[in-house]
Amino acid sequence: MSDTREQILEQIKVQGDLVRQLKAAKESKEKIDEEVARLLALKATLGGDAAPTNQKFTLKTPKGTRDYGPQQMTLRQGVLDKIVQVFKRHGGEAIDTPVFELKEVLTGKYGEDSKLIYDLKDQGGEILSMRYDLTVPLARYLAMNKISSIKRYHIAKVYRRDNPAMTKGRYREFYQCDFDIAGTYDPMLPDAECVKIVSEILDSLDIGDYVIKLNHRQLLDGMFQACGVPTDSFRTICSAVDKLDKSPWADVRKEMVEEKGLDEAAADRIGEYVRLSGGAELVEQLLGDEKLKAVPNAVKGLEGMKQLLKYCSIFGLDKRVSFDLSLARGLDYYTGVIYEGVLKGESASVASPAKTSQQNGEQANEPATVGSVAGGGRYDNLVGMFDPRGKAVPCVGVSIGVERIFSVLEARAAASGLKLRTSDVEVYVASAHKGLHEQRLKVLNLLWDAGVKAEHSYKLNPKLLVQLQHCEEHQIPLVVVLGDAELAQGLVKLREVTTREETNVKLEDLAAEIRRRQQSA
Amino acid sequence: MSDTREQILEQIKVQGDLVRQLKAAKESKEKIDEEVARLLALKATLGGDAAPTNQKFTLKTPKGTRDYGPQQMTLRQGVLDKIVQVFKRHGGEAIDTPVFELKEVLTGKYGEDSKLIYDLKDQGGEILSMRYDLTVPLARYLAMNKISSIKRYHIAKVYRRDNPAMTKGRYREFYQCDFDIAGTYDPMLPDAECVKIVSEILDSLDIGDYVIKLNHRQLLDGMFQACGVPTDSFRTICSAVDKLDKSPWADVRKEMVEEKGLDEAAADRIGEYVRLSGGAELVEQLLGDEKLKAVPNAVKGLEGMKQLLKYCSIFGLDKRVSFDLSLARGLDYYTGVIYEGVLKGESASVASPAKTSQQNGEQANEPATVGSVAGGGRYDNLVGMFDPRGKAVPCVGVSIGVERIFSVLEARAAASGLKLRTSDVEVYVASAHKGLHEQRLKVLNLLWDAGVKAEHSYKLNPKLLVQLQHCEEHQIPLVVVLGDAELAQGLVKLREVTTREETNVKLEDLAAEIRRRQQSA
Repeated sequence: MSDTREQILEQIKVQGDLVRQLKAAKESKEKIDEEVARLLALKATLGGDAAPTNQKFTLKTPKGTRDYGPQQMTLRQGVLDKIVQVFKRHGGEAIDTPVFELKEVLTGKYGEDSKLIYDLKDQGGEILSMRYDLTVPLARYLAMNKISSIKRYHIAKVYRRDNPAMTKGRYREFYQCDFDIAGTYDPMLPDAECVKIVSEILDSLDIGDYVIKLNHRQLLDGMFQACGVPTDSFRTICSAVDKLDKSPWADVRKEMVEEKGLDEAAADRIGEYVRLSGGAELVEQLLGDEKLKAVPNAVKGLEGMKQLLKYCSIFGLDKRVSFDLSLARGLDYYTGVIYEGVLKGESASVASPAKTSQQNGEQANEPATVGSVAGGGRYDNLVGMFDPRGKAVPCVGVSIGVERIFSVLEARAAASGLKLRTSDVEVYVASAHKGLHEQRLKVLNLLWDAGVKAEHSYKLNPKLLVQLQHCEEHQIPLVVVLGDAELAQGLVKLREVTTREETNVKLEDLAAEIRRRQQSA
Repeated sequence: MSDTREQILEQIKVQGDLVRQLKAAKESKEKIDEEVARLLALKATLGGDAAPTNQKFTLKTPKGTRDYGPQQMTLRQGVLDKIVQVFKRHGGEAIDTPVFELKEVLTGKYGEDSKLIYDLKDQGGEILSMRYDLTVPLARYLAMNKISSIKRYHIAKVYRRDNPAMTKGRYREFYQCDFDIAGTYDPMLPDAECVKIVSEILDSLDIGDYVIKLNHRQLLDGMFQACGVPTDSFRTICSAVDKLDKSPWADVRKEMVEEKGLDEAAADRIGEYVRLSGGAELVEQLLGDEKLKAVPNAVKGLEGMKQLLKYCSIFGLDKRVSFDLSLARGLDYYTGVIYEGVLKGESASVASPAKTSQQNGEQANEPATVGSVAGGGRYDNLVGMFDPRGKAVPCVGVSIGVERIFSVLEARAAASGLKLRTSDVEVYVASAHKGLHEQRLKVLNLLWDAGVKAEHSYKLNPKLLVQLQHCEEHQIPLVVVLGDAELAQGLVKLREVTTREETNVKLEDLAAEIRRRQQSA
């Protein structure tokens, strides 16, 4: 039914355009009348007036996306503010780029993940794709503007046609909060600062225990070489290793051998290394490893790790970082250090919202772990890919997975039953009786002009009780109650919502009195 | 050349996938070897190593979009903060929705402007379009969540495949800042507050003189009826009237008569009305107009205007508002009051950036006027279009055209030659001589942990002069200078960049001393 109506509406539109064209082209009256008759017939099939169609399709947001209501926005804004505070503490400058890029900008940057890029329809003109991360747009921005050094942060949504797992905070549209340091600098100084930034952010969000895993792409490549992986399979084997955080070694080994054609012995040698993790002592152990020692890339990677761990130690991060040979990261563009911040144990669990509402808290909810909440690394060649002369700008950066952090904090807020205040209203202006709406507007105007956050009922004559209930429900601390008796003397009642204490205040002193109470509160 | 390389890379990818599939399917060795040989041949045509391609396409952002660098972001953030402050003063709660919607959500909401909607490519799954404004997503959100009242603001980017005019601040991707009041309330109380909000925002941005034009869709419809426009042409004639802010009456009349088939006499009668503007006295005059008096819609619209103007007067806006019969607004969904905030005279001019750089300020730049900087109105039926039972939620709202405001303020900043500070760094940690990078990291760590915004050079051994110059260029107020002599006594030098005054401070007192200086600054 409703589809049919939709189609008819479309036909009416087309027919209407035709009639207008005929008229514009001054066609014969007969021809125009004929088409007008057809138009009227179409309209008649709709029956009745031109009332708005009530669309019958399911009301939803696109797959893998969600709305944020006021509660979620309040929580989210709190998280983002804390993150920005850390970025600014480290001298970050903000930039923003368009949500879509020329498709060619994204081509060849993401390896096997490229299939997850959203494309725009070709509507004539340029061929566009939605940004997949904030890193490639940064590289494009740096090359386009010939910027050779910047410490920038960027908080914006990115888009991936991935399989969504919304309870784990995995969406198709999600915020990224990126901090990157571009410029030619001495080894590991900017890299270590990125690790420090991750730890400051996770500490400030008070989200529970975490570990920042560290590894190095040069070491991975050296390790692959030492294990006998052919050079042209490094990236694809690296992609397989990247799955170790979700899949057991047996599955990853199978992918290497069966799908990617790797020699079984080589896979087993990789399996020995990727189970290793530790600190500076592991670096020393591997620097003594016969197979790795023989491969220059492996040695370079290990020496980088040694320096990074030293700086992390100065930053007080010994207990927070873990050198982990199973960390690979999926993206092609990394060339040096790679990191990943992972929540540990309890803090990684978010209750499934669906279950919470069904089971109503009676049974323990099955927790879903969110895992990685930050990731990044060094990518020294990406900017050069955009520069006509190939001029490189070395970069290192980190991206905070805020959606997963939101999921954890939302689950925690839901469990606590606490409701966040979603508006900042300080004063509600109420009528004690009928006929005072213009007086309310006058008082509101006076308050707004003094910078006081104030609201009222948009009814002409609301009941006093309803107005006071609104204040209690919305945790508004003060009410100005207007009544003819007081107004005749130039007074209004100022009432504290929690204590219900009332004082008469001169209208001209009202804004100052409210300010005074807020400061002493 | 580079296109060819691109194509080969694509073929390599396809061929590589094929080889992997064959291996996974355990095809015969001969078959696999044959395809591997083909793959290697393709790789060989590329010649040399797998070094990154330097892409040869023009580096640019998509047509009608732009990057924001740190200077622009600083200015923009200042504007958005002021706008949010006003929204919150009026009790606004924030929400956010996805950047794209199911295409059907947007269908039939924008009239003739629908052709400007960006569609996403059909990659399997849902058919999506980029949001065109924030109003339709709000209506979808309210209907989907069965919310019958809210006062929400939403600051986000919207997308229109319009003809961009970037020097005037007209983009294909641009920010909107919307405030809307949804709920069943008494006439004009929320509507007048929206006008007040526009005036508070334009006042707080100190952007120059402006006028808020007001009109009413019911009055427009009544006027069309009184002038003899057929009912089914109201919307299309309304679209023509909407062009009066950019085109002279003669052109608009031509469009009505020639393109839209309107009777010449009817067009001329419309022409008489749309030249009228004024205040409460104009409402009275029109309430006495013979033709309008006879049309119930016109009388209702005029009575609404009368009440709105009264409330605006209480809000101290007599000099800011103008009842203007030429104001029509393009969108289909308005049902009552419509508004538009327009900059007047000088404040509406922005210098063309291209000319500024070419002529170098010697000649007066030809100003481009930005015109409308805010707009909105009442749309009582939009939410009902999404509700399966057609349940209406009356809404009124306003949208701030921040891109145009940015254009005006950027032009003004460029003319003044003032450079905004784009980072908040309070202290720079410098080395007086070689070999101090680890000491720097220790001091930085101490400052960061105390919440001080601090940075340093990422070079191991930077020259002191270079470090001090960095502070002057970036307007960083304080420098901590490390040297072996002071460090041996547990001291560091604290230097004021502007006065060059230096004091020795105990390392353990450093953070507190910096806080003290900031508070007294």
